[in-house]
Amino acid sequence: MLIVQKYGGTSVGNVDRIKNVAAKIKSYWSEGHQVVVVVSARSGVTNELIARAKSISAAPSEREMDMLLATGEQETIALTALALHSIGVPAVSRTGAQAGIITDTFHSRARISQLTGGDIKERLNEGKVVIVAGFQGISSESEITTLGRGGSDLTAIALAAVLKADICQIFTDVDGVYTADPRIVLDARKLNHICYEEMLELAASGSKVMQSRSVEFAQKYGVPFEVRSSFNDQPGTIVKAFEKTMEDALVSGVALDRTQTRVTVGDLPDSPAAFAAIFDALGESSVSVDMIVKNVAPIPGKANLTFSVNTDQVGYAEKVITAALKKLGAGTFRSSGEIAKVSIVGVGMTSHPGVAGTLFRALSEAGINSELITTSEIKISVGIAPDKADLAVRSIHSAFGLDK
Amino acid sequence: MLIVQKYGGTSVGNVDRIKNVAAKIKSYWSEGHQVVVVVSARSGVTNELIARAKSISAAPSEREMDMLLATGEQETIALTALALHSIGVPAVSRTGAQAGIITDTFHSRARISQLTGGDIKERLNEGKVVIVAGFQGISSESEITTLGRGGSDLTAIALAAVLKADICQIFTDVDGVYTADPRIVLDARKLNHICYEEMLELAASGSKVMQSRSVEFAQKYGVPFEVRSSFNDQPGTIVKAFEKTMEDALVSGVALDRTQTRVTVGDLPDSPAAFAAIFDALGESSVSVDMIVKNVAPIPGKANLTFSVNTDQVGYAEKVITAALKKLGAGTFRSSGEIAKVSIVGVGMTSHPGVAGTLFRALSEAGINSELITTSEIKISVGIAPDKADLAVRSIHSAFGLDK
Repeated sequence: MLIVQKYGGTSVGNVDRIKNVAAKIKSYWSEGHQVVVVVSARSGVTNELIARAKSISAAPSEREMDMLLATGEQETIALTALALHSIGVPAVSRTGAQAGIITDTFHSRARISQLTGGDIKERLNEGKVVIVAGFQGISSESEITTLGRGGSDLTAIALAAVLKADICQIFTDVDGVYTADPRIVLDARKLNHICYEEMLELAASGSKVMQSRSVEFAQKYGVPFEVRSSFNDQPGTIVKAFEKTMEDALVSGVALDRTQTRVTVGDLPDSPAAFAAIFDALGESSVSVDMIVKNVAPIPGKANLTFSVNTDQVGYAEKVITAALKKLGAGTFRSSGEIAKVSIVGVGMTSHPGVAGTLFRALSEAGINSELITTSEIKISVGIAPDKADLAVRSIHSAFGLDK
Repeated sequence: MLIVQKYGGTSVGNVDRIKNVAAKIKSYWSEGHQVVVVVSARSGVTNELIARAKSISAAPSEREMDMLLATGEQETIALTALALHSIGVPAVSRTGAQAGIITDTFHSRARISQLTGGDIKERLNEGKVVIVAGFQGISSESEITTLGRGGSDLTAIALAAVLKADICQIFTDVDGVYTADPRIVLDARKLNHICYEEMLELAASGSKVMQSRSVEFAQKYGVPFEVRSSFNDQPGTIVKAFEKTMEDALVSGVALDRTQTRVTVGDLPDSPAAFAAIFDALGESSVSVDMIVKNVAPIPGKANLTFSVNTDQVGYAEKVITAALKKLGAGTFRSSGEIAKVSIVGVGMTSHPGVAGTLFRALSEAGINSELITTSEIKISVGIAPDKADLAVRSIHSAFGLDK
């Protein structure tokens, strides 16, 4: 088999962990598999480099930041190759450029435009393990680029696609995808499999396992992958295309996102044009908006718009909205506190009515008021008070029988 | 003017020093010069990386070590570019590969085979300062290579040659080339200029300012360069081709090398063939030999050979010599303790008789016995007891009036 493995920053965090990773790679290689390994920078290294850059320049150039940050992965590939050599496994490292990861020219958030794989196939055929630097590529202008958050997962999945790997394993510090965060719900269960759509909704709903982008890429190219722990040998969760049998599970998981803040734009003209002006302005400024509710205001002909934005972006959203309101000549901006977004996700939902009923009954029995609600084909999210978040997740998890 | 500057690891050792270097670069750029800057890894970084590699593998692959070590300079170029940006100087960084530093395929000690300069000229013409990673290149097989010790100096001098720079400045932690080590001789003087040949003899005689290799390269391509301090604004020492006026100085400097050990091969057949067998074996094993003396042994038809080898190489030299003696069927190996090599260097020597006389009179008056002697056109070296080394340097410095 041809296996692509990815080890995150925690898994290669220090010399001992790199040796552990090498031993794990050897166990697959010894069974006769061809192994391509993608590694991240050692945990902490990227943050150290960023801190050093920020102490020099408040707004560092993205091109130079990419030049700087790419060193983190380059260090890890060399050390991992050395660790394999020292236990008798032939191995060779490849930077993103050497692995033929060609990107566009948008520094710090480059997109892969072409992936040749370089000479990886030839090296595999020589019996070598090939270690590739995650997160980085080379632009069409021969500049070092980085792929942004979750970039190493993307490198692994893209390589798996282009090399036609039999499996892609994302080794991380969690055992797989759970029905809920095990730190909140003690009897949360690890899922054996989940489809891309559910994984995407979970990622968008605050589950930190993987960035949406890599899952979307896997979905687009039909690359099944497994999320599993680098610290034990348990099987993880396989993420793959939807299969009919998956419908048995009504709801796959409960996700929690604590990073939202509720924002209200009051006394707007009650017209689609006014709402469009607000959302267009936010969209052009790349502020993501979620859980939109429109209320009629006490003043006739006026309406209030309430929605959630990422807490990090509230200040920026206020600037953008205030400017838009000035143009409109009406309306007021108000930020009304953080909220927690609790979501249930499951492809089974589409064919089973009554899911929303079960959700709201669970919240009601726990005495939790939902302030904002949003739904998709396979997801229902509610915005609630942050101090009720854990209780809500536990109540919902139990109401859907996810512990069984 | 087009200026190539090189800043060593101590000069860019931390964020504050990088900011100082940026300010210094700005002062040249502001005067309208085009500036290309070569930087080393921050001091300590290379050693840290080596230690990390050694804790994984006792004999790390040179290819992977180059992959690892090249990250050190890549970090510095990005940080230096950011420091320039933050004080309003347009700057862009270039890895060795991007600067078109093409090398052969000998990892850890690659030689530059071609230097294109990449797009440096275009960037300079846009008014930008170009920051190039020293010490590294890219091989004809697209592998990252490093140039070995003193590699960053070589990068700077090679770039100065190919860009036809008006001057090449090697900024370091010393003020220039001195008539003797100022830690030993308090009234040692900084030389204003020195010729390549003298600089080479000084480097070979233990002066730590620069590696011979970079000086040889500068000599071959006729690149004058200046060695000066990055911590002050004093002019340094200009190293250039010999000019007639330089002959005024009989002796330019006194160098000291404490890294030699005296080795004796005793009871050899007194024949050139036997001596050749010993030196051929050492030569094939890349053990450098210096200060050779032949003594007739007490046994008729036998001779003793005494010479100095680098202390690091004594164990290896013993192995090589013992094997050669076995083939010869005669002779014994004996290492007879460390010696200090004190050398006087000066192009003026060739045309002034009596230099050796002054040297030995100085030693004699100081009560120092010289155990080994070797001479070249522009150098005389003596091997003496290590505990007499400082006294010898001071006595000789004064005897030649170098303090005046």
